[in-house]
Amino acid sequence: MKILIALIFLVPFLNGISQKGDSAFIRSIYDEALLRGEAHENLRSLCKDIGARITGSASADMAIFWSEKLFEKYNFDKVYLQKIRVPHWERGTKESAWFINKKGKIKKLNVLALGGSVPSDGLISSGIIEFKTLEELKKASPKKVKGKIVFLNEKMNAHLINTFKAYGQCYPIRRNGASEASKLGAKAIIIRSLALPVDEHPHTGSLHYQEGIKKIPAAAISTMDADFLSNTLNKSIRGKKNAQTINLELNCRLFSDKDSYNVIAEMKGKLKPEEVITFGGHLDSWDTGEGAHDDGAGVIHCLEALRILKELNYKPIHTLRLVFFMNEENGNRGGEDYASIAFANGEKQIAALESDRGGFAPRGFSCDGTDLQIKFLKQFESLFAPYELHVFEKGYGGVDIGPLKKHYKNIPLFGFVPDSQRYFDFHHSPNDVFENVNKRELELGAASISSLLYLLDLNL
Amino acid sequence: MKILIALIFLVPFLNGISQKGDSAFIRSIYDEALLRGEAHENLRSLCKDIGARITGSASADMAIFWSEKLFEKYNFDKVYLQKIRVPHWERGTKESAWFINKKGKIKKLNVLALGGSVPSDGLISSGIIEFKTLEELKKASPKKVKGKIVFLNEKMNAHLINTFKAYGQCYPIRRNGASEASKLGAKAIIIRSLALPVDEHPHTGSLHYQEGIKKIPAAAISTMDADFLSNTLNKSIRGKKNAQTINLELNCRLFSDKDSYNVIAEMKGKLKPEEVITFGGHLDSWDTGEGAHDDGAGVIHCLEALRILKELNYKPIHTLRLVFFMNEENGNRGGEDYASIAFANGEKQIAALESDRGGFAPRGFSCDGTDLQIKFLKQFESLFAPYELHVFEKGYGGVDIGPLKKHYKNIPLFGFVPDSQRYFDFHHSPNDVFENVNKRELELGAASISSLLYLLDLNL
Repeated sequence: MKILIALIFLVPFLNGISQKGDSAFIRSIYDEALLRGEAHENLRSLCKDIGARITGSASADMAIFWSEKLFEKYNFDKVYLQKIRVPHWERGTKESAWFINKKGKIKKLNVLALGGSVPSDGLISSGIIEFKTLEELKKASPKKVKGKIVFLNEKMNAHLINTFKAYGQCYPIRRNGASEASKLGAKAIIIRSLALPVDEHPHTGSLHYQEGIKKIPAAAISTMDADFLSNTLNKSIRGKKNAQTINLELNCRLFSDKDSYNVIAEMKGKLKPEEVITFGGHLDSWDTGEGAHDDGAGVIHCLEALRILKELNYKPIHTLRLVFFMNEENGNRGGEDYASIAFANGEKQIAALESDRGGFAPRGFSCDGTDLQIKFLKQFESLFAPYELHVFEKGYGGVDIGPLKKHYKNIPLFGFVPDSQRYFDFHHSPNDVFENVNKRELELGAASISSLLYLLDLNL
Repeated sequence: MKILIALIFLVPFLNGISQKGDSAFIRSIYDEALLRGEAHENLRSLCKDIGARITGSASADMAIFWSEKLFEKYNFDKVYLQKIRVPHWERGTKESAWFINKKGKIKKLNVLALGGSVPSDGLISSGIIEFKTLEELKKASPKKVKGKIVFLNEKMNAHLINTFKAYGQCYPIRRNGASEASKLGAKAIIIRSLALPVDEHPHTGSLHYQEGIKKIPAAAISTMDADFLSNTLNKSIRGKKNAQTINLELNCRLFSDKDSYNVIAEMKGKLKPEEVITFGGHLDSWDTGEGAHDDGAGVIHCLEALRILKELNYKPIHTLRLVFFMNEENGNRGGEDYASIAFANGEKQIAALESDRGGFAPRGFSCDGTDLQIKFLKQFESLFAPYELHVFEKGYGGVDIGPLKKHYKNIPLFGFVPDSQRYFDFHHSPNDVFENVNKRELELGAASISSLLYLLDLNL
């Protein structure tokens, strides 16, 4: 009886101590990030010394070298490259579109080929037909579409508070638009960029050609140009719709697969070295802008998270493995191969965490897992309250870590959730540059991830 | 007994209906802001057609006219100007500082006179002495300081998560630095700008001269220049500190007080028109940049909040009074006079709300009030959860609405709380321009304020 009473009093007391200890350690993590952080300078270097780094490019190779050297500089327990095969698509040097109206007035459009697009093989000059949604295009009569360039002008839905939901709704126009237009005999397709603001930047991204359908060239134009084009097309001149032509040239092309690498660093676990917590982002980016938010911020978050734990002399229980994944943007070969190799090697993967939603002010973490795993995450909510994190809920993990679920059914996948409002101002566009990442927001993200890693390691 | 049971079941049921109704109406507020919002365009016009608008300037007069016309265009129940007397300080045309080292090497410093500073009356050329904190300056020997220019290089504390707390800690260097330096015989003072990033923008703001102390010129230099200056001063050349001179010229001056106005619009209450809910921000700004976040965003938030309620055909119970206050930055005469006039007129002021922390993604609301009033605010938390607001706590109301407390002891004052991370990148600097306000973040702020106004009106 006495023992029971002692226990009743002891348990909350111990919890009290532990929470207090956690809280102090987490404060030291945030201090290291905010007062002596290296995230901002490392992101600057990745964006300015390397820049855009699409899979298969020389700059992607450079980014791999850059990452490996930086990991070695930080003197992590183990640094290595994991060989993978990746697709190799190049934008080429010719990429232009002009709009010409009936009177011969000409206007250049801000255009970017979609990733994976076939080339136009010279100049396509053709009439244009607009659709407001993918569904509208699917229902159209082939007669109307045949021989034309389809203009798919679906807007991201500003009603949705989380911009990723709006992106998810609109995403099929980019992924499937070309195949749907091709089925109806279109020569090419241009889509409205997947972006919320109306501005001059086109946003690229990968497309998917359905098997057995003729591949047609596909490109995105800026939202401003999409509005201009739509307004012009819908203007009547003496009762007749304003006839017009689009001239389009793209000489992008797909080369053979080539070798590339995931870049990996580890802090070895002291008690359970064989149990691995994987965390990271993707090192590749699109070939425009500097991949600053997507996903420069994510890889730098995770690197900084590990650097901080090492700097604070934390000795992990499990092995903490940082992965800079290659090829998230147009294939996810890095993520797929990482998971297969881990499984083939008999590794014990106990949790994974990804940052791939930009370098904005932290809101919290989502968990792709069971109710119990989400409850497990939620227990940390109060520890993060002083840092203004408040989202601890069921949700997506990330593209790179996603394939782990194929091999490890019960693994919880955690996604870092920053504020989403500005993400689609920059995503996949020439505007995704270092200057658009705020230093403190980036640092707070890195500290949040470092703190969750610490808590996962301690409590799993 | 039956009645009691019926009531027990009825009360939660009614609450259920009411919450459901509130939740739908709030959704329609956010939709109006996000899908048909006018906040972004109105802020563009205020920033680009008017621009900076320091109290007493022609552009402040223009901003008053602009606001009145816009209120009239929206056809609010009552639009009027409230006459007040305001201070009138002008920066003048000469404002420069150079650093010259022993070898004659010269470097221009990015400088802004502090608001209210006396002029230098020609060029001051003098030795310089650095202090790292205001406390260090206070303890210094007059011998060391006499005849010199004091350089007060206190940094905002990046450790604090809420940047307003860091600002609050550092604020005394700007407010009191000149008087403290003058007491020790300094000729002038330059301070490190109150800003977190290290960049080239100087940040101004008001100072306060203590009674009976000689007024000396005071200016802020950019954080980048402050770091440069500090490094240079602390470099030793052959064992001796690097001697140097600062040349400083400011021809700012204070003119006589002049007439100005608070600009006011009302939606009249249907049931309790004599009970007033005051809400607003300040129309004046500093005379650099465009006053986009400070406080263009705040006035536009509040205007949009009222426009939305009118657009949605909401009939308020109490009178909703929108105030664009004049002179928050260097005197708060608008806020002081508004409160005095309301009280003198026997008005019943039942609550007030202010937005003056920038146009960033909403985090919630703070309440300067009793525990009961804070509890009252907290009851709305779940209604705001879908919009990612999570801060509902005791805290500051705002400078403009603050004086209401002098006359109405029990009035609750609410402050809109957006994310604070980027605010001090822009505050009082040439960098506070329209381009640095994100459209969606601004719109979400306006919708949040409109929603709280609705809830206050319905539940007070």
